[in-house]
Amino acid sequence: MAKAENSVPAPAVRRLSLYLRQLEAFQSNNLQTVSSKQLGQALSLSDAQVRKDLAYFGQFGHPGVGYRVSELIERLRQILGTDRKTTAMLVGLGNLGHALMQYRGFNKKNFEIVAAFDKDPTKLGQAIPDRPAMTIQPMTEMLETVNHLNIKLGLICVPAEVAQDVADMMITAGVRGILNFAPISLKVGPNVVMSSVDLAVQLEQLAFQLSAMQNRATEPRQ
Amino acid sequence: MAKAENSVPAPAVRRLSLYLRQLEAFQSNNLQTVSSKQLGQALSLSDAQVRKDLAYFGQFGHPGVGYRVSELIERLRQILGTDRKTTAMLVGLGNLGHALMQYRGFNKKNFEIVAAFDKDPTKLGQAIPDRPAMTIQPMTEMLETVNHLNIKLGLICVPAEVAQDVADMMITAGVRGILNFAPISLKVGPNVVMSSVDLAVQLEQLAFQLSAMQNRATEPRQ
Repeated sequence: MAKAENSVPAPAVRRLSLYLRQLEAFQSNNLQTVSSKQLGQALSLSDAQVRKDLAYFGQFGHPGVGYRVSELIERLRQILGTDRKTTAMLVGLGNLGHALMQYRGFNKKNFEIVAAFDKDPTKLGQAIPDRPAMTIQPMTEMLETVNHLNIKLGLICVPAEVAQDVADMMITAGVRGILNFAPISLKVGPNVVMSSVDLAVQLEQLAFQLSAMQNRATEPRQ
Repeated sequence: MAKAENSVPAPAVRRLSLYLRQLEAFQSNNLQTVSSKQLGQALSLSDAQVRKDLAYFGQFGHPGVGYRVSELIERLRQILGTDRKTTAMLVGLGNLGHALMQYRGFNKKNFEIVAAFDKDPTKLGQAIPDRPAMTIQPMTEMLETVNHLNIKLGLICVPAEVAQDVADMMITAGVRGILNFAPISLKVGPNVVMSSVDLAVQLEQLAFQLSAMQNRATEPRQ
């Protein structure tokens, strides 16, 4: 019996994404079935860990066969919610915003950016490369567009100083998920889910690990 | 007395980046001093958490004053290793690679991309927008360039299928830090630090949280 989804530990949910990614790689190599050991090895995890994580969500293995790759991919997509399309909008058409409009990974996960907004009047009405059906809209059209296109998710690509305002506007318009690329911590209510991508933070953490490693290498052994 | 850097819990190191980001925001608002309570509130953390995290690295507060913003910024940059320049190279000049070449956040953290490589012969020698001093180099020049420019960090922006090969080449060339944007788990030795940025995984996790939240909202109370 699968547990309620909200009682599953976050690291297990995070590993589901890794399992799915690895299974997709196996599938593109024409592998039909896979054992928990094979799946674990490819990701430097134990087979017990793989079985335990998957057991939160149900019974997926077949005795003597292991997991059927295409079946497990389908089930994981259902569990993660990427088997259905999620409509999204993007606010802030700077360098990063434009790069994200080009990013094909969103479509692979069934996210579709259907609207783009910017407050810069010189950008309004501009076409977006590879997106013939879209133009950059003014912020004042957000509420109507979110309702009209049933937009569920908002991507924030504006400068830090205005990111909270944009988040508040998105939530007012009815968006319930935010992916924040602005380098600032945003506050959202309990009925909104948010994830942040801050490359600068990631770089800094890497710099810290690099220098910690170099310190270890040069310090005298105790 | 500060603890050895490698014995500090990873979440505390991660929060250092958030403190630094928030302090920089305070500084741009001309705030001179800040209390642990103010810093904590801005990040939805307790003041005790802030004090505990910082105490791993030394004594930064001044009695009756709190933290001096510019001083704490400087110390955090030293601790994180972003007070010194880190030279980096990027491999894979597709959409994402080009977007990252334009991304100004690297320079803000003292990372400088000084070389770019691609295996596609049609891209070799091409100029890179806004980077007059650089052209796209063939993979065969990696070893020499890493040594010549003392490159410490490699950014992997190639397709998943070739990402491990590129990581191996980087490590052979002498790179000790990798930032992986390819949607695959890479294996590196113990003397290499790696961090992965997978937007698709982040999207998927957000999709899961969105659907878990919607399930909570619609299920009968118990």
